[in-house]
Amino acid sequence: MRFGLPRIAYVNGRMVPLGSAGVSIEDRGFQFADGVYEVCAVLNGTLLDWQPHLQRLARSLSELEIRPPMTPAAFGLVAQRVLRENRIRDGLLYVQVTRGAARRDHPFPAFTTPTLVMTARPFDFRQRVRQQSTGISVVTRPEIRWARRDIKSVALLPNVLAKQAAKRAGAFEAWFVAADGRVSEGGSTNAWIVTGDGSIVTHPADNDILAGVMRGTLIRLAHERQLKVEERVFTMAEARHAVEAFITSTTAPCLPVVAIDGRSVGEGRPGPVTTRLADMLWQEIARQTGWRP
Amino acid sequence: MRFGLPRIAYVNGRMVPLGSAGVSIEDRGFQFADGVYEVCAVLNGTLLDWQPHLQRLARSLSELEIRPPMTPAAFGLVAQRVLRENRIRDGLLYVQVTRGAARRDHPFPAFTTPTLVMTARPFDFRQRVRQQSTGISVVTRPEIRWARRDIKSVALLPNVLAKQAAKRAGAFEAWFVAADGRVSEGGSTNAWIVTGDGSIVTHPADNDILAGVMRGTLIRLAHERQLKVEERVFTMAEARHAVEAFITSTTAPCLPVVAIDGRSVGEGRPGPVTTRLADMLWQEIARQTGWRP
Repeated sequence: MRFGLPRIAYVNGRMVPLGSAGVSIEDRGFQFADGVYEVCAVLNGTLLDWQPHLQRLARSLSELEIRPPMTPAAFGLVAQRVLRENRIRDGLLYVQVTRGAARRDHPFPAFTTPTLVMTARPFDFRQRVRQQSTGISVVTRPEIRWARRDIKSVALLPNVLAKQAAKRAGAFEAWFVAADGRVSEGGSTNAWIVTGDGSIVTHPADNDILAGVMRGTLIRLAHERQLKVEERVFTMAEARHAVEAFITSTTAPCLPVVAIDGRSVGEGRPGPVTTRLADMLWQEIARQTGWRP
Repeated sequence: MRFGLPRIAYVNGRMVPLGSAGVSIEDRGFQFADGVYEVCAVLNGTLLDWQPHLQRLARSLSELEIRPPMTPAAFGLVAQRVLRENRIRDGLLYVQVTRGAARRDHPFPAFTTPTLVMTARPFDFRQRVRQQSTGISVVTRPEIRWARRDIKSVALLPNVLAKQAAKRAGAFEAWFVAADGRVSEGGSTNAWIVTGDGSIVTHPADNDILAGVMRGTLIRLAHERQLKVEERVFTMAEARHAVEAFITSTTAPCLPVVAIDGRSVGEGRPGPVTTRLADMLWQEIARQTGWRP
């Protein structure tokens, strides 16, 4: 971490100090949550899974009929510039695109230029490696979100409330649970369980969850190793009897869940399947970026 | 309408030209939809129902545990200043409060100052009076929103998509209809039907809808006149057989709905109950503000 280095943001074609980087008060991201985003991991100066993140961003924009503000190649150049200006070796790149600024009115404005913001900051992935050995706890919260969680929109207020509830309970994450017991995902991570017969289970990538890039990587790698992965709905009843549970995300590749709502999962400590999957993901990260804990 | 007059916005203690009025790219309103808002009508230079709007703003803030940025009296002074600077006689005042700017992280930041934005613009309420005589049409859209529609948050993306669908269909509004047929409300208005026995029906003010200020005024006035108002759930099946239907909101006090999804409601023209209620509301508006069509 380099304190004192002024952070530089990209905002609509300009590099500006973060402290003075702004968007219009009539930006539709600010007034309507009419925008989407991505958070990408940077390790050893290399963007992890950049192509899948770009593809997901393109899909989110397409679902909202927001015109992409630049080509994929240009996105990459701006991202590299932001990382360089902020001297990021290990960190996070944040990309946000909104429909742009227009006089406030719900329907899409006829003529408007999308807003593009990129920022970067250092992030210590070693803390995640450390958390792997102790595991983390989650709380459950009622699933109160909208029905299009597959779009990575900035309409994150329910996620904010759930993550705040988790923080207050001393937990790392909150899992959203529907009235019928179905577990969708966490406030900013995907949710997984390992069943008694060794199956690795996570919610299918439909409208009910955000298809995490790390989730996709884990499924691919697990298939390659002939591990049994089931993309199907699971319930809290099943999660309580799971032998292991874990979460995946860009900022927390794979963390064992050792307690849910204060009750131990399995033995109450990181289990062998999760540990193996986490190792597998770190190896993939090392392969892509050369980064090692 | 005064074209050419530069609009002036209030942003965190300063009056600034709208064109250069901005908020931080790390404002939680922009990154998380972590904020709330109000739209108030100004007629004859007077804020309509200012106290109910302020009370609802206070409730929205309280539900999200956002500290009010100023006292109710100070809100009033700033509002008057914004109206004056923009020379608004008939118009709309927009008030938005967010949790403020902070380094991006879902839970509430420990120390942050809420962001307060106020803008105003001219609005021609006479167009609404004209629309009353022809009526408007609505389309239905699946209810895909989150479960806390009672909070007037800026997480309006589903409303944007619904209003855009209405616009494309040539309709004025979209009504959200749940899988079981229940009608909650419109994208930015409350939904009402008049049944064969003359009952005026609208969804109860629970978590499923935003308790409109105009909705509240209509219920109060109808009660005073011994009209039968039922705050209960109604379905699309009921709406299709209603003798009249209408919408209420701050910007459209009372507009007859003459078609839903292309099918006529009742006789397919504004009915006597809706017309009476609209007259009643305009009289109340005249009483408060002196404004007359």
